[in-house]
Amino acid sequence: MTDTDKLLSRAAAQMTESAIRKMGSVLASGRDVISFAPGYPAPETFAWEEFSQIAAELLASRDANVLQYGPTRGYRPLLDTIGGIMRQRGVATRLEDLLVTTGSQQGLDLVARVLIDPGDVILVELPTYVGAISAFRNLQASMVGVPQEADGIDLEALDATCERVRREGRRVKFLYVVPNFQNPTGLLIGLDKRRRLLEWAERRDVLIVEDDPYRELYFEDSVTEAEVRPIKADDTNGRVIYLSSFSKTLAPGFRVAWIAAPPALATKLEMAKQSEDLLTGSLDQRMIYEACRRGVLDRQLPILRRHYAHKRDVMEDALRRDLGMASWPKPKGGFFLWVSLPDRIDAGQMIHRAIEQGVIYVTGEAFYVNNQGKNMLRLSFSAPTAEQIDTGVARLAATLRAEVAARETAGAAGGPGAS
Amino acid sequence: MTDTDKLLSRAAAQMTESAIRKMGSVLASGRDVISFAPGYPAPETFAWEEFSQIAAELLASRDANVLQYGPTRGYRPLLDTIGGIMRQRGVATRLEDLLVTTGSQQGLDLVARVLIDPGDVILVELPTYVGAISAFRNLQASMVGVPQEADGIDLEALDATCERVRREGRRVKFLYVVPNFQNPTGLLIGLDKRRRLLEWAERRDVLIVEDDPYRELYFEDSVTEAEVRPIKADDTNGRVIYLSSFSKTLAPGFRVAWIAAPPALATKLEMAKQSEDLLTGSLDQRMIYEACRRGVLDRQLPILRRHYAHKRDVMEDALRRDLGMASWPKPKGGFFLWVSLPDRIDAGQMIHRAIEQGVIYVTGEAFYVNNQGKNMLRLSFSAPTAEQIDTGVARLAATLRAEVAARETAGAAGGPGAS
Repeated sequence: MTDTDKLLSRAAAQMTESAIRKMGSVLASGRDVISFAPGYPAPETFAWEEFSQIAAELLASRDANVLQYGPTRGYRPLLDTIGGIMRQRGVATRLEDLLVTTGSQQGLDLVARVLIDPGDVILVELPTYVGAISAFRNLQASMVGVPQEADGIDLEALDATCERVRREGRRVKFLYVVPNFQNPTGLLIGLDKRRRLLEWAERRDVLIVEDDPYRELYFEDSVTEAEVRPIKADDTNGRVIYLSSFSKTLAPGFRVAWIAAPPALATKLEMAKQSEDLLTGSLDQRMIYEACRRGVLDRQLPILRRHYAHKRDVMEDALRRDLGMASWPKPKGGFFLWVSLPDRIDAGQMIHRAIEQGVIYVTGEAFYVNNQGKNMLRLSFSAPTAEQIDTGVARLAATLRAEVAARETAGAAGGPGAS
Repeated sequence: MTDTDKLLSRAAAQMTESAIRKMGSVLASGRDVISFAPGYPAPETFAWEEFSQIAAELLASRDANVLQYGPTRGYRPLLDTIGGIMRQRGVATRLEDLLVTTGSQQGLDLVARVLIDPGDVILVELPTYVGAISAFRNLQASMVGVPQEADGIDLEALDATCERVRREGRRVKFLYVVPNFQNPTGLLIGLDKRRRLLEWAERRDVLIVEDDPYRELYFEDSVTEAEVRPIKADDTNGRVIYLSSFSKTLAPGFRVAWIAAPPALATKLEMAKQSEDLLTGSLDQRMIYEACRRGVLDRQLPILRRHYAHKRDVMEDALRRDLGMASWPKPKGGFFLWVSLPDRIDAGQMIHRAIEQGVIYVTGEAFYVNNQGKNMLRLSFSAPTAEQIDTGVARLAATLRAEVAARETAGAAGGPGAS
């Protein structure tokens, strides 16, 4: 057979399978497994009836554009709608700032392609979204992590890191942050810190890439809408590239998201998209547009906030009941609960035992660019039902007990080699 | 404002807008313009009724997977269906060879990302598909062109070019070809030449990327199904990466296409796709799958062959009637007619006059990697109606007459500076 390995690009040679997607194959194996792994929205919340109605009308119209190629920037009425959503979030945009993307994952990839040369430094939170890590790594970026505090990224550490990297003669291309209900920690950057972060970016001349998929999913018992104000809202200087999505609010299967960026960058992002996939699905864009226009999105949001807040409660209760040795910051929104286990536990090694017990999670290490997080794991409470959450946490507790027992036996026998 | 230009990646700094997409903005301006520019399928052929029925059933099912995230490789039943299509085309594939892509444009981009490092040489036909040029250019490939004969790529020139490039110490990563009804020339590589091309690739240890979107659209008055046999069909050695699509046969708005590649490469292509867009639209994949399963695709194909053959006839008749100074190879399938004008005509300069007259095309130069083709233009006969084709060709003739007259006046007055 042809030896294709020798032909791989440098980027491809170092590509690895995503830790989240790997868990997907466990699920696809058909075992009885409760999944806390991927951040899937709850399908019982999808607006099935409205989508049926919208699809029927769009296809009955026989408007050629519903199934035809279309502009790379996006379906114009959808772009206008996105402009309105941005306005509601406190961000003034013009048409030339906006670009529809095939999910926010494409948005991250386009940003990476347009800004990153091999060896460029990207500053990221410790931990950060694994899909961003892989998008940036595919452009051979060098990622440097900055620790987080309870109210988000540590500004002093950020400044010191940026200084150090520059002193080493390396080029910082941007800072990547998820200010609202961060993936994986669920943390929220405080309002005052957002302001100071933007000032810092101006002072140090660094771009900010603000990834905001969970913004609408704030839990009203913990946080107000004022607290999820985008950093972009105060950006008067074209300093922030903002990404958001309909995947977590309407449905991810449509693959419709967007970027708001300074116009010169938006033009380059559009060119990159032209040769990446020409356009985002035509029917998908119209389904999303109609769902916005008909008020489906606005009706959904309060329902979703209550739905996910409730599931968070169920998961926290179960963890408190069954997993005494775990701790986590209380999620004020979003999909994720970020669990710390005792230092001696390696969540990566434990995953095999968890699969045997019938529960999966994502190992914390996948979210770190510096090999930390071995005793951490990310649990998604979004997709499983309340009952599944209860059962899954019980299975996780059994997994952990067995892991601790095995380690103690191994320890008593004199080392990990034994038993 | 932030100076973002200085932050662009090397790839982004050299990105330009696609010549085809640029013509799209002329159309969007709302003028009375007949477009022979983009290769859009004819919307009157779309299976509206069947798609309506399928969408209604899929959304009524409330099967979560219809709107949920899903596997990066693609929807399993669709992958199996694609395996069946490949078998009909004479290609035996296994599941691990196949990957669903978000249009073939993504397929080209993924192939580029997985195989190309900056400076690698990609051999292409002269002329070749402009979307492939931009996908390869975005990875900073160096493209080297090989002339075509009436039965496709010139094998002697190909071998000499490959030798020369290697003597220069440069690395050839693959040969990119569109064997069936090539975009833009409409040419078909002869069966015997396909066989010899594969032998050549084995002998010289070069991969072939075979892009085959138009294969089903062979015109039965000019060519038989046997003549569109993929090069991949005779590839026993993992030498050929094959791309095809449902965009030209069912509808492009769904963005569903596929790659068949040696498994080790398919795995890397999947990883690249993971961080590029996670998955191809879930509803879209199911719409396409159902259209195949219910026989819609099979019913459509003979209708489409007749439809496009007829439009080709209308365009050829109109050109013979109105454009005496033009010549072209007769398209035996596909969407395009590749027109040569007299040497003194510059199709790029003439485009402004054409837009004034109310007709657009794509300038030939866009399809060349060596600045040839100034007197060439690509006309798509696929989307306009027969009446529009007639009117459009008449406008093109008026454009050409005016251009010739202007050049003669300029020539008589002593040079292009005058009048």
